[in-house]
Amino acid sequence: MDLVEAIKNRRSIRSFKGDVVSEEDIYKLLEAASYAPTAGNVQPWIFIVVKNIKTKKNLAVSALNQLWMTEAPVVIVVCANLARAKRFYGERGKDLYSIQDTAAAAQNILLTAVSLGLGGCWVGAFSEARVAKILDLSLELRPLALIPVGYPNEEPQPSSRFKLEEAVSYVE
Amino acid sequence: MDLVEAIKNRRSIRSFKGDVVSEEDIYKLLEAASYAPTAGNVQPWIFIVVKNIKTKKNLAVSALNQLWMTEAPVVIVVCANLARAKRFYGERGKDLYSIQDTAAAAQNILLTAVSLGLGGCWVGAFSEARVAKILDLSLELRPLALIPVGYPNEEPQPSSRFKLEEAVSYVE
Repeated sequence: MDLVEAIKNRRSIRSFKGDVVSEEDIYKLLEAASYAPTAGNVQPWIFIVVKNIKTKKNLAVSALNQLWMTEAPVVIVVCANLARAKRFYGERGKDLYSIQDTAAAAQNILLTAVSLGLGGCWVGAFSEARVAKILDLSLELRPLALIPVGYPNEEPQPSSRFKLEEAVSYVE
Repeated sequence: MDLVEAIKNRRSIRSFKGDVVSEEDIYKLLEAASYAPTAGNVQPWIFIVVKNIKTKKNLAVSALNQLWMTEAPVVIVVCANLARAKRFYGERGKDLYSIQDTAAAAQNILLTAVSLGLGGCWVGAFSEARVAKILDLSLELRPLALIPVGYPNEEPQPSSRFKLEEAVSYVE
């Protein structure tokens, strides 16, 4: 799929058909994530693939009880490796680059999902402590995004955007 | 350009030909940025387009003196609107979502650059205070990425990546 089409057709999908997402497609999503740029090529991340219904439900409960998440056949949990980010770039690595790098990876996952006929949603409102406990994360890992992925069972309208000129300024 | 091709062909470009980037292409970069997902569709961002050579030089100096940045015909400065992020989502909005949202926008800019035959580089190592002063930013804006963009004058090899299985774990 064309890049611009993927960027413009991406929607937040919160309802999914029952169809399984193939291992091949999951691999493509993760591979795309791994191609995101990272500060100093540190790649301070781990991607956790969750299919188990009980774990998905626990994640959904940790995320303001958004039970629609359990409909998705797979949830990808994007985690920053804080220790790794900090080792290379100190506090700025831990508090900024690790968030930016994993966010670029999350965006690659969402765009690639569109290109595969899948849909996903970037869930950011959750208890990090609860997710860490559910997934038994080591202390160095910080969960930063939960991305349920599956075949869309809805066709949301595009969300409204500011006019571009309201979000842009020029320095000549 | 195909999405996957754009994702895989993206490189950090630090040397540029003299050719001007058209207004139309700059618009496409900014439009792509504006299509990034944001928590609650808050769009907590401003994109500042810098072409002035003196301002570019000042930005480069603020970024560990990376003077190669001045070669780029245009530098896009991605800023978070902290006040807006905080108003909707409190500290998590200010310290997490605003960084993630602007990072997804930055990634859209970089991918779209590739599709237009352009190249860019995500510069994160800079003094935020100095950039804020150079651009006379209001207090609510936090500069989070400097993205020099232009026609590539180099063809960097792909950077090495961890094997995917080292960055992925599965919860069955």
